[in-house]
Amino acid sequence: MNNKTIKFPRKSAPEKSARMVETIVGCKWSLTVYNLLHNDIRRPGEMVRNVEGLTTKVLNTCLKRNIEFGILERKTYNEIPPRVEYRVTKFGHKFIQILDELEKLQAEIDCEKA
Amino acid sequence: MNNKTIKFPRKSAPEKSARMVETIVGCKWSLTVYNLLHNDIRRPGEMVRNVEGLTTKVLNTCLKRNIEFGILERKTYNEIPPRVEYRVTKFGHKFIQILDELEKLQAEIDCEKA
Repeated sequence: MNNKTIKFPRKSAPEKSARMVETIVGCKWSLTVYNLLHNDIRRPGEMVRNVEGLTTKVLNTCLKRNIEFGILERKTYNEIPPRVEYRVTKFGHKFIQILDELEKLQAEIDCEKA
Repeated sequence: MNNKTIKFPRKSAPEKSARMVETIVGCKWSLTVYNLLHNDIRRPGEMVRNVEGLTTKVLNTCLKRNIEFGILERKTYNEIPPRVEYRVTKFGHKFIQILDELEKLQAEIDCEKA
């Protein structure tokens, strides 16, 4: 028997976080919403007003999905009228950073093909 | 008209690089191959010997896909017998780093659910 042969186990893939990438990238508006939040536009009404083609219904589906993943959180302020704002969670910041890295990589791919 | 309203365009997603994540994470052996290369195991024969359950046929499909994406490169050395080795490209290193980040995120998801 060759002593130099080490047995490597199969390395399992980060399937859940990869599925997040897949779902969020497949979602037409998530990246736009992150951009809005980055620009301090946090209320659903404001968001719809600030993006052409974005409807309240579609935005709500998008926000709900991001909350389920733990990327965004919803905060309600006890005011009259009640104020609802969205924020990126700590976990979400890490996730969005990965998407930014993917974007840079995408730019490299596009560059090469041009 | 409200002067404060800025129109944000829809932000397009890094679809190609996200598709790479999807494909590579879906591929049963890519992460194992990166691990082998990281441990300086670069020749297909060595790879098969060092991993339980990995066949030459499956390994070749995996290597080919990674070359197509530009993650790995194949180097042939003019020796007798000819030597073939695989290496991670500069682009590939960036991609693998993103996968590492996804793994950390995955660990956080798993932790929360435990």
